[in-house]
Order: sequence, then structure tokens, then C-alpha cells
Amino acid sequence: MNNRQIILVSRPTGEPTAANFALVERPLPALTDGQVLVRNHYLSLDPYMRGRMSDAKSYAAPQPLDAVMLGGTVGEIVESRSPAFAVGEHVVGMGGWQEHTIVDVGRAPLQQVDTRVVPLSAYLGPVGMPGVTAWYGLDRIIGPKSGQTVVVSAAAGAVGSVVGQLAKQRGARAVGIAGGPDKCRHVVDDLGFDACVDYKAHRDVRALAAALKQACPAGIDGYFENVGGVVLDAVMLRMNAFGRIALCGMIASYSGAPTPMAMPQLLLVNRLRLEGFIVSEHLDLWPTALRELGALVAAGTLTYRETIASGLAAAPEAFLGLLQGKNLGKQLVKLS
Amino acid sequence: MNNRQIILVSRPTGEPTAANFALVERPLPALTDGQVLVRNHYLSLDPYMRGRMSDAKSYAAPQPLDAVMLGGTVGEIVESRSPAFAVGEHVVGMGGWQEHTIVDVGRAPLQQVDTRVVPLSAYLGPVGMPGVTAWYGLDRIIGPKSGQTVVVSAAAGAVGSVVGQLAKQRGARAVGIAGGPDKCRHVVDDLGFDACVDYKAHRDVRALAAALKQACPAGIDGYFENVGGVVLDAVMLRMNAFGRIALCGMIASYSGAPTPMAMPQLLLVNRLRLEGFIVSEHLDLWPTALRELGALVAAGTLTYRETIASGLAAAPEAFLGLLQGKNLGKQLVKLS
Repeated sequence: MNNRQIILVSRPTGEPTAANFALVERPLPALTDGQVLVRNHYLSLDPYMRGRMSDAKSYAAPQPLDAVMLGGTVGEIVESRSPAFAVGEHVVGMGGWQEHTIVDVGRAPLQQVDTRVVPLSAYLGPVGMPGVTAWYGLDRIIGPKSGQTVVVSAAAGAVGSVVGQLAKQRGARAVGIAGGPDKCRHVVDDLGFDACVDYKAHRDVRALAAALKQACPAGIDGYFENVGGVVLDAVMLRMNAFGRIALCGMIASYSGAPTPMAMPQLLLVNRLRLEGFIVSEHLDLWPTALRELGALVAAGTLTYRETIASGLAAAPEAFLGLLQGKNLGKQLVKLS
Repeated sequence: MNNRQIILVSRPTGEPTAANFALVERPLPALTDGQVLVRNHYLSLDPYMRGRMSDAKSYAAPQPLDAVMLGGTVGEIVESRSPAFAVGEHVVGMGGWQEHTIVDVGRAPLQQVDTRVVPLSAYLGPVGMPGVTAWYGLDRIIGPKSGQTVVVSAAAGAVGSVVGQLAKQRGARAVGIAGGPDKCRHVVDDLGFDACVDYKAHRDVRALAAALKQACPAGIDGYFENVGGVVLDAVMLRMNAFGRIALCGMIASYSGAPTPMAMPQLLLVNRLRLEGFIVSEHLDLWPTALRELGALVAAGTLTYRETIASGLAAAPEAFLGLLQGKNLGKQLVKLS
């Protein structure tokens, strides 16, 4: 049997393009003892993958050239030579951008999941890495008190959508920042945020800060940052004393020159705490987070959207779209 | 009896000048019940005073025009109509830039101090606000582990000198940043830091980061920031994962345009925690801090230097010198 894969063939300078990737077809080797074969149903596309495509020093090793792109997947065991997994079971793992993955059980992460009340794809979204990312930054860094105001950028995305809904659960006012009127409408009407600011309608720092002042009349106590750049500068102008900033992503500068922080003295003047984090370094908290997130999704009180590209070949374009903010909610690729 | 005072007569735009201040002589009113008259021996000059001279929004109300400049003082009770203080007692308080201060006991801070083992002036330095500032940022924000590397800017100043010595006490490697070879020599030879980088000899970010790499071969785990600007940018390039930055001051931009932070993405890449603080908001911890600092000074294990200007009229020039880094250690004015 052959396996179709997407490999990285060159590193981008600036914006990545489809030419950085190639679709290849390779024979699947036979399983050896301790291995399972997973047919991947969904591939997760995430902003962090952009960082891995570069070989600049970062917290994770770069994605090797000519190797299968790394990525989270959900799928189904189709062959097993491990007592830990039976054929037909659903699993979540790091299967990569490919239709099938051979996993050495115990040597790579692979977790059985229950699809009776939580749909399989949700384990790549609100009940997976993006959900835990939102949970960690909100609960462990921002720690909103009831009545405080929490702002999140990329609010219509997989992480941001969960941040705002969890903030509401904690009794906070939730305000999103998103690009365009459709996303903003979704954030308020479907996700239940109290307000959403369209950053595309307010292109400079002062205009964006003024819009935030309207949306956050009592100032901003917590900020969950996915974007960086002008958006961060504008939010900082509206932060209250003792505000907390959870720095999760800075997608604005992933493909270009670093964007300076214009007024760092505001960190001092307003006694802010800013903390960068990577959710994979807090694995001890995943079970607690996933328990809450799974229960909220099962109960229907945590809403989420998915943007689903069809077929492995569509993955590169879908990924480029994600970097440009074309997706609503979680960007997935349906593989089978 | 007349009292000599220095008042603020105009707000600076950019660097303050002596013309912003005026020396005036005004009659001292008679005491009423509950008041004491303090003859101020030493006036403390501190960088935070620059912020108060402006009327930009900040954490503290601006210094009013035509009023006595605010400032910490130590002195002696020369007349008392309060049972809480007797003539001859030494006190620390916020007496302002003047030779005598009338204090309404219980309505303004005034604390008796023991000068038998700790010299009076030290209550404005290592056993006063600068010492507690160092203690708070180091212990409560940086929290150095034994063997970790702590860097502090303005290392020869009143705060920085204590930061490094306390870091050594905690088993950390202490590295200073200071301006000029004399200050750097003092930091290493007299204060016992492990190394000191002369920022004036490394004027751009890359050169300064390279010098820091030499001085901190294992990277930087904690940074106590008094300066901001290029110095902060250079330190950030050398911070280790999970490093902590205590943001205490940004004197580099007090009199000019705000200095951007060049590479905020390093906060994310290295999962840094950065926290701005103001020591006067943590009064509950002062007794604990002062107990340790007082014991260290009494035992002679905490070294400090003072730069002492003579007479009230010298205060404005001494303050301008402080902003330019002309002082070594604590900048004081001897008033009597």
C-alpha cells in the first residue's frame, strides 16, 4: 500500500508559498512488533508550524527538510501489532501531514479518544491543543476575576474562541479582536463575547486603542495575545494597573521582520505582568484542562467552528490561508 | 524661623534643567497639636522624581507646580507636640526638598529609626526604599535559584548595587551593567559582583549582547531592569528559557521619546516573564525586607556607597547628575 505525504522541500523567506511543499507518494512498510497503523481522518493546521519551517533558533527544533511536515492528527487504528490499541479505535497523535502514520507505541504520543459525545475532530480543537492553550493562558497567567475585562486577539480562531468563552464562564467581560465584520459578528453572535473590535477597520494604534476604549469602558485587566505588533501596542494603551498579558503567539511577525513593542514603559507605568508560554511544556495540566473542556463541549456550552479543507493535497493552501486569517475557528484538513 | 525649600517652577520638556527649580525661603509656622518639626539631615534623590515632574498620566500624581519637591528624608525631631515622638529622635519620612518639615503625625509617614548600628543616611539607601526595591524585584519577581545568573543594569546605583549583592547571597552569579570603567571596577572589586559590562563601551545592541555573552556564559536567568532601551534589547537576546525580568525603571527614556522594545517575540520564544512593579505598593513586605537589609548592613556584609551633595541649593544639579549617571551609589544631599 502507498502512503501520500506532504514534505517540506524548501524554507520560506518571508511569506511561505505552496512551492515550499511537495506531495509525495511512498510505500508503507509492513508493521513490526509494537507498532500500529493509523489512518488519519483529520489533520490540524496551526500557526506554530510557520515557526518550524524556519531554521532560526526557537523553542523547538526546525522541521527537517524533505521530511513529512509535523502536525497533530486524529484517526483510526487500521492495523495493530500492539496490545495497547485495537483496530477500529479512535486516536489523537502527532501523525503529520500524511494519510497514514505508523506509530511506535510508547515512543510517540498516541491517545485513545472517546467519540460518543465529543466529535473526533474536536480533539484537534477545543478538546485538544488549542483548547488547552486557551485554558492555560487564561487560567494560569491571566487569572481573571469576576467582573474584570479580558481581551483576546484572533478571537475567531481555534484558541481565541475558547479564551473568550472560558472568560465568560469565569464571570469576566470578554472582548475579541478579529479581522473583518463577519468574524466580529460570529464572535459576538455565535460565541457570546460581549464585544468584538475589527482591527482591519482601525489600522493604526490610536484608532485601534480608541475602538478598544469603547468596547472596554472599564479598561483591560487581562489580554491573551495571539497576534503582536500594532494590536499589542493598542491593547497596552488600554490596560489597567496590575493587568496580565498571556503571550501565546505573535502571528503578525511570523513571516516578516520582528515588530517592535512601541511603548514598553507602559509595562512599568501600569505594573503589568507579561508571560510567554508554550502549552506543550505544561503537560501535567492537560488532564485537568481537557476534563473541563470536554465536559463543556459535551454539554454544548462551548461553541466552536471548523474550517475544513478537503484532501491532503489541499493542506498547503489551507495552511497559507490560516496564516492570512482566512479561516473561521479551527483549520482542519479532512484526509479520509 | 525661616525654612529654605526647593520648589518646582516649570515642567521640563526633555531633559530637566536647573531652571525648572527655584530656591525659596519661607517662614516656618508654629506647630499645632499633633505636629512635630523635623530638621532634615539628608535628602534622597531618586530617578522616580523625574516622572513626577511631568504631568503625563502615570502611577503617581504629578508633583504640583510651585510646591516643595517631594522626596524622602532622614532627620531629627527638633520640636514635638505629639506624644509619639520626642525631641532628638531620628526619623525617616517624606520630608521633601527642604531643610525643615512639619509633619502631622499619623497623617504622613514618619518612622523612628535606630542609628546605633545602621548610619542615619543608610535609611535612604540600602535600608530604605532603594534596598527594598532591590529586595522585592529580586526575591518576589526574579526568584533566583542557586547557580543561576542574575543581571542588573545601573549596577553601581543605589538599587542595582543591592540587587547584585543579594543575588550573591542567594547563591546566584551576579553580573552588572554600568556606564564607564570606574563604575564597572567598583561593581566587581567593591561590591563583589562576578562581572560587569560597560555599556558605554558597547553602544549598539549586537556589541552589548556579545559582551553579555562573555560575562554570562550560561545565559541570563533573571534581569533587574533600571534602564530600558538598547540595554534591555541586548539582555533579551541572552535570556534563557523561563527567564524573569523585574521591570523597576527605564531611566533611558525618562526625558525623551519612549524607546521601543526591538524584539518582543523573544518574550514568547524564550517563555519569559516580565513584571513591572513599584515598591510602594507592597508595603506589607517592607518589614521583612528591612529586617534582612538592616542585618546585612549592620554585619558589614552589604556594601554601599553614597554620593553626597552639600547643602539644599546643590540639590537640583545633583538631581540632574543622577539622571545622567554621574553618581556612584546612593545620591544624597546633606542638608545640615
